[in-house]
Amino acid sequence: MIPVAILGGSGYTGVELMRLVAGHPQLELVKVTSRQYEGRPVASVFGALEGAVALNFCAPDPKALAQAAKLVFLAVPHQTAMDSAPDLLAAGARVVDLSADFRLRDQAVYEKWYAPHTAPELLKEAVYGLCEHYRGEIPAARLVANPGCYVTSVLMPLIPLLKQGLISADGIIADSASGVSGAGRKAKEGLLHGEIAENFKAYSVTGHRHTPEMEQELSLAAGQEIRLTFTPHLLPMDRGILSTIYVSPMDGVTEGDLRSAWEAVYHAEPFVRILPKGSLPATKEVRGTNRVQLGLATDPRSGLIKLFAALDNLTKGASGQAVQNANLMLGLEETAGLGELALTP
Amino acid sequence: MIPVAILGGSGYTGVELMRLVAGHPQLELVKVTSRQYEGRPVASVFGALEGAVALNFCAPDPKALAQAAKLVFLAVPHQTAMDSAPDLLAAGARVVDLSADFRLRDQAVYEKWYAPHTAPELLKEAVYGLCEHYRGEIPAARLVANPGCYVTSVLMPLIPLLKQGLISADGIIADSASGVSGAGRKAKEGLLHGEIAENFKAYSVTGHRHTPEMEQELSLAAGQEIRLTFTPHLLPMDRGILSTIYVSPMDGVTEGDLRSAWEAVYHAEPFVRILPKGSLPATKEVRGTNRVQLGLATDPRSGLIKLFAALDNLTKGASGQAVQNANLMLGLEETAGLGELALTP
Amino acid sequence: MIPVAILGGSGYTGVELMRLVAGHPQLELVKVTSRQYEGRPVASVFGALEGAVALNFCAPDPKALAQAAKLVFLAVPHQTAMDSAPDLLAAGARVVDLSADFRLRDQAVYEKWYAPHTAPELLKEAVYGLCEHYRGEIPAARLVANPGCYVTSVLMPLIPLLKQGLISADGIIADSASGVSGAGRKAKEGLLHGEIAENFKAYSVTGHRHTPEMEQELSLAAGQEIRLTFTPHLLPMDRGILSTIYVSPMDGVTEGDLRSAWEAVYHAEPFVRILPKGSLPATKEVRGTNRVQLGLATDPRSGLIKLFAALDNLTKGASGQAVQNANLMLGLEETAGLGELALTP
Amino acid sequence: MIPVAILGGSGYTGVELMRLVAGHPQLELVKVTSRQYEGRPVASVFGALEGAVALNFCAPDPKALAQAAKLVFLAVPHQTAMDSAPDLLAAGARVVDLSADFRLRDQAVYEKWYAPHTAPELLKEAVYGLCEHYRGEIPAARLVANPGCYVTSVLMPLIPLLKQGLISADGIIADSASGVSGAGRKAKEGLLHGEIAENFKAYSVTGHRHTPEMEQELSLAAGQEIRLTFTPHLLPMDRGILSTIYVSPMDGVTEGDLRSAWEAVYHAEPFVRILPKGSLPATKEVRGTNRVQLGLATDPRSGLIKLFAALDNLTKGASGQAVQNANLMLGLEETAGLGELALTP
Repeated sequence: MIPVAILGGSGYTGVELMRLVAGHPQLELVKVTSRQYEGRPVASVFGALEGAVALNFCAPDPKALAQAAKLVFLAVPHQTAMDSAPDLLAAGARVVDLSADFRLRDQAVYEKWYAPHTAPELLKEAVYGLCEHYRGEIPAARLVANPGCYVTSVLMPLIPLLKQGLISADGIIADSASGVSGAGRKAKEGLLHGEIAENFKAYSVTGHRHTPEMEQELSLAAGQEIRLTFTPHLLPMDRGILSTIYVSPMDGVTEGDLRSAWEAVYHAEPFVRILPKGSLPATKEVRGTNRVQLGLATDPRSGLIKLFAALDNLTKGASGQAVQNANLMLGLEETAGLGELALTP
Repeated sequence: MIPVAILGGSGYTGVELMRLVAGHPQLELVKVTSRQYEGRPVASVFGALEGAVALNFCAPDPKALAQAAKLVFLAVPHQTAMDSAPDLLAAGARVVDLSADFRLRDQAVYEKWYAPHTAPELLKEAVYGLCEHYRGEIPAARLVANPGCYVTSVLMPLIPLLKQGLISADGIIADSASGVSGAGRKAKEGLLHGEIAENFKAYSVTGHRHTPEMEQELSLAAGQEIRLTFTPHLLPMDRGILSTIYVSPMDGVTEGDLRSAWEAVYHAEPFVRILPKGSLPATKEVRGTNRVQLGLATDPRSGLIKLFAALDNLTKGASGQAVQNANLMLGLEETAGLGELALTP
Repeated sequence: MIPVAILGGSGYTGVELMRLVAGHPQLELVKVTSRQYEGRPVASVFGALEGAVALNFCAPDPKALAQAAKLVFLAVPHQTAMDSAPDLLAAGARVVDLSADFRLRDQAVYEKWYAPHTAPELLKEAVYGLCEHYRGEIPAARLVANPGCYVTSVLMPLIPLLKQGLISADGIIADSASGVSGAGRKAKEGLLHGEIAENFKAYSVTGHRHTPEMEQELSLAAGQEIRLTFTPHLLPMDRGILSTIYVSPMDGVTEGDLRSAWEAVYHAEPFVRILPKGSLPATKEVRGTNRVQLGLATDPRSGLIKLFAALDNLTKGASGQAVQNANLMLGLEETAGLGELALTP
Repeated sequence: MIPVAILGGSGYTGVELMRLVAGHPQLELVKVTSRQYEGRPVASVFGALEGAVALNFCAPDPKALAQAAKLVFLAVPHQTAMDSAPDLLAAGARVVDLSADFRLRDQAVYEKWYAPHTAPELLKEAVYGLCEHYRGEIPAARLVANPGCYVTSVLMPLIPLLKQGLISADGIIADSASGVSGAGRKAKEGLLHGEIAENFKAYSVTGHRHTPEMEQELSLAAGQEIRLTFTPHLLPMDRGILSTIYVSPMDGVTEGDLRSAWEAVYHAEPFVRILPKGSLPATKEVRGTNRVQLGLATDPRSGLIKLFAALDNLTKGASGQAVQNANLMLGLEETAGLGELALTP
């Protein structure tokens, strides 16, 4: 068993990591930190883990984590992650960071959307952890920047199409919706059951922080600058993201060509499910799993092609992909510990 | 009190009509039909109406309805509506049809999307019941075609902008999501709680039947043919539609210009709420009401403008608007019986 | 229009009061306070009230409230209510207190379950505002103590049966469940959508604060001390309480006798709906209304009789009953402003 | 890999069995039947199983099933199960029946609550599959009757206490609530999202069919006839049962004694989690798992002790327990394939 640790275990990505590591055949959780719950048994906070995680939450001490664990997951907010990563790496641990701190390659872009960066020297070293597209670089990486949840749902369908020049790089619109766990486990009025249930609305419509991350990776795939129109919405449910993406096919390109491009790239991918014509992704079918479902259809009125991608924002959109990255970094089977299927219903 | 009747009282639009008529100061429900429940007290099927609707469901007999009532609401499926409307009109009743049967002015378009039309002679006479835009014609109408739910959410924000030529008629995308009551009260596996809760997905993505109705009215507003890209989604909740609409402003036109156009047309409308900059429509805030909330924002990456419209698919999207039409037809205060506010939470 | 004010408008009972007063034909809201939102327009916090409540939240100043309003609703937490009530009364306002501060007639009991009482001289004067049972005293009251939500659901079915000695005063068990709005609009982790959805659990099982209030009123009805077994549960929904109550009929007493007792007391009550044999209360049928649904059935194995009562915890269980009390105090029709029916669905 | 088959794969217990068998290290699903979906790929009906179950649904042919599989799960309604079981056994298969057909040892009791029994000769042979209490008999059984969902939640806390005579056999009340998947995947109006969401109500309050099954097993444990008061309720959620059980301790018996009795019997049970004092079961913490959570508290007013048990009605309450039984019958590790933890949130 390979010892791993989690910095920041009190949020939803932290507890999802604990769940996945507890069921992993080769990883063992040796430490999990939380300022809020320091000293308390994990199972007293998260009853679902009772009998599966016997640890108490401990204080966040990077050196102690790096001594105890070969790999540390950072499940803390941005800013906190960049403060801890250098110490963890210096102490010999490898790191999968679930925050945004090392996802943007350009320090200026990061600082425009977030805040001053205190560990810019690591931006070059960090590998972007979208496993299906960076599988070559992840195994040797010391520091992996785990992609954002919305971002994964937008990149997975678009990257193969842009790389092959099948769709226009202009005018792409990503209309996405997420379950409320994407906003974290924060005691805010806006996240109460009373505000979420039987409600649907858009938010951050003039600039969600996932936009530059999407544009960075899409531009790399397209070989030209992409400016994306992105609109996130908040769903009355816990988990799941669906992105509906409007693209303009290049002259003569058909829906079938896009499907073929997906199949060429993804046919052997264990976590990517390309749905047959007529079937459309549904968040419930991937809930709690590391899967992405992809589907597409041509709009007969406009000729635009609609792409659909569904995933669980906490699993493939965060902690599941983090474990997938850890598997690659540690030389394990990429699917280890990630085989669960969604519940029906 | 003016006597009214409902043809088809066993579905969700039927029961919503009963609720609204029961609270209306000048309308009295004298008959409500249902083949399924014939002879049973309404309150034994819909407990919420106990003590407010004392009728039993009766068989659907157009002549008897027309004799008893001055105005009949048709809350039956398309095809059934066109079979009853001529008889009701011939017998002297006025009719508000909540189905699609008289919404499309062109018989050929109707027959392409639905089925052969058995009362095409009424298509010209029927008035399209989008009250805010057809208020001049509704009072004298014998037959009002009540607009579709998605349609209302798309027309309300777009008509003023197209009429004034502020946005391009090309490339409009309407990305919409509806609560499950929009699919009706049908015993289908796909509508079970187990299939809907914690799920989000698109459907009818290559041709929802509301598309030609939207295109008809948008084309009239624009003075040119509009081809719309429309994508409906199914939300894990009972009631509410949010449409997120992507439009391209004409050269030099700003978000402020669009807002001004809305205000010019809608400032005195009791059921249209234009939200201040920075506020966005939320379905919960209009749940159970006849309101439409409108909001907008400019996408800084693409320059597209995003329009947002929220309404309750059963109220402003169906039965509330039908009562609003009835009020106009009967010379009553347009807002009579429609003053309820949404619950919080 | 009679001017009324609300002390504490930022919680769920406060916003429910605003909704009900906005729809009331004879009451006008002239002031609503909130420390948290002081100075902000009400509609900017509660979008559902846009166009219906034009006030800004103001600071809590009892004298100003009493000058502006004839009657003040206290929608603040216990302790805060007892601090304000004496000043409001002294300044000439009448008061409906939605907190627990004046519900318990015995100061010692209050202090055992809550905290030291700072206005004990008002305990004797306060009238317990269970309208159907204290209608004689409410009209002249200066201070009405509005009953608790669970309490109302337990007292309504039990009081007539205990008064007539039809059931044993011993061994009554009330097993209740409430939607999460009963816990208020507080930014707590335990009230997040992620903790509530798809979850069901009991809480406060060894002593919920509503217990002494239930026991006080039940004992008065029975003419002997009642010790009640009460278990509250938290439901994955916003609004609604269902209480399932197990009682032992006296020798020879049948289910029909209990039903007759209910009918004798409640047959003319506008807000009490006694369901026919075979029908059972459902929270959705009373959602957003001031109704209580009652039903009952005999358990064939044990001979116990099961009583069922459903209400909306924020309406008949709080703000609706408060308006009912205000109507009685102000000489208005008791049902004024309280006629709404529940939505289906 | 041991070949197993499922008779009746179109319902919720069928698809839950498929999910569990797909993740089981030693079982392989070789056939799954459905009249409704015969010939269709499983994954086209249940998208969550795509890539994990490659079979098509086949017609229900007991001989073919018995030839292909060593063990057959019956996930069909009662009556259908008793028609198939004899043929399957005769053809050499072992059977775990998830219906009620072989749970009641007394044919007369079965026929009183259900219908005439067509395979009464098997009633004696069938072993009641409550694994924690019939572990000795299950391994050799040809036919195991898998317990009911509510029943499991009531038996698990009560059996140890009755066996040791710690509580009175009289006056036990079980107040239970279940998610809607307990009603199956049937296209009925009462199970639509619109009828379930934001609703809570009791049903079958004068005689739910799980009552005789509970009484049979409780009477066996107590060594005397038990007559139980049982009230089921329907929750606005998909999965989960919570039973709140009121028991009267024998003289001198304390809450601690009950806890000790549980610990003596269950301390090594992998699927039984006894919560520490002050913690209470929550359905979300066992969702999708084979766990039962137990908790208890003493009511200070009445001296009654409240027992709480939470489980997932489709897993430990049906298909999970069925796999647990299959593991015992086939000589596998009892926990094989049943290690999943609940999602948070």
